[in-house]
Amino acid sequence: MEIRQSVIIPVTEKRIPATFYSFDEFGTGHEHLLIKIHSPSGSMPTVPTLRIHSECLTGDVFQSSRCDCGPQLQEALRITAKNGGYIAYLRQEGRGIGLYNKLDAYKLQDSGMDTYAANRHLGFNNDARTFDMVAKMLKAVNVTTIKLLSNNPKKEQALVKNGINVIQRLSTSCFLSPDNKNYLQAKIDLENHIFGPKVDDETVSV
Amino acid sequence: MEIRQSVIIPVTEKRIPATFYSFDEFGTGHEHLLIKIHSPSGSMPTVPTLRIHSECLTGDVFQSSRCDCGPQLQEALRITAKNGGYIAYLRQEGRGIGLYNKLDAYKLQDSGMDTYAANRHLGFNNDARTFDMVAKMLKAVNVTTIKLLSNNPKKEQALVKNGINVIQRLSTSCFLSPDNKNYLQAKIDLENHIFGPKVDDETVSV
Repeated sequence: MEIRQSVIIPVTEKRIPATFYSFDEFGTGHEHLLIKIHSPSGSMPTVPTLRIHSECLTGDVFQSSRCDCGPQLQEALRITAKNGGYIAYLRQEGRGIGLYNKLDAYKLQDSGMDTYAANRHLGFNNDARTFDMVAKMLKAVNVTTIKLLSNNPKKEQALVKNGINVIQRLSTSCFLSPDNKNYLQAKIDLENHIFGPKVDDETVSV
Repeated sequence: MEIRQSVIIPVTEKRIPATFYSFDEFGTGHEHLLIKIHSPSGSMPTVPTLRIHSECLTGDVFQSSRCDCGPQLQEALRITAKNGGYIAYLRQEGRGIGLYNKLDAYKLQDSGMDTYAANRHLGFNNDARTFDMVAKMLKAVNVTTIKLLSNNPKKEQALVKNGINVIQRLSTSCFLSPDNKNYLQAKIDLENHIFGPKVDDETVSV
């Protein structure tokens, strides 16, 4: 897989330089991004930290408290900006079922279903996402060894299966809100997500 | 056009209740939303304020300073939350050319083209968006008279042409950054955008 384009965009209110990469293999509707967050010195650690994040319009844009996507992404930006790192931003909204179906699933959750049962009730699997493309994106920018910031064991498995060396997995912080307790609990109980202690910035220094 | 689904999602760090509407006519890839931002009292003004906002992943999610989309959306959330109002969030990234093409256009802008010339160089019009669907979305929730928060005369024209009564147009604030001066100037010079004085919250009270 080849890089299609790379452009520098200043991100966050601090105007942190970030290189946005697009790729030739991904077509309309699945415009996945790899984003290199530059460190203050401009250097990148030998083993950079990677966050794999799937698009969540309600969380990422509107800071919905029904999930933890928004604060997880903001935390990833803070952590990667410290020493340099990568965010893979994958256009697979609502665990891959799309925005409109996600809203339908939210309605079912309002009547008591958990987040996975709602997806199944709509005819989807627990999780319709894939993470196999991330390894190809990393290799296209010559990154083969990373620390992974993620609670989801499937993300680590997908990287390792596709030839990326994951030397450490770091949990995100637990972003509990009055509206997402059942959602977080379902991730732990049904998909084996691992919530660790709050990420200590020191642990991601190299 | 009928409402497909309506769900309440608490948004922003203040957990402001917002009703997210999806619609039966919009299919995969164009999952436009109408979002009703509730006021603190729960009441909606007789003439609510509407912001029409087209998706900008780099601005809305990553607060890119190459455009003014991010702060415009945050301002719209603040203003509508004060008295109640609507945000039409339209899935037409990059003035309708998509995210990957937008990154290609950014690369051209880095070599000196303005934002519209870059789009044309890639084979697109200045602006590939349409706003005609917003009137249908409003009518589906029984709103026919609004105040419009927008600098873009085409948005007002599209509403009026499709039977919405726009009693006032309010400019957004001017969100100038070190990285978006040429972008804002091109909007003024080439597409007649109207930057007014900073929005006074009092003017949007009813």
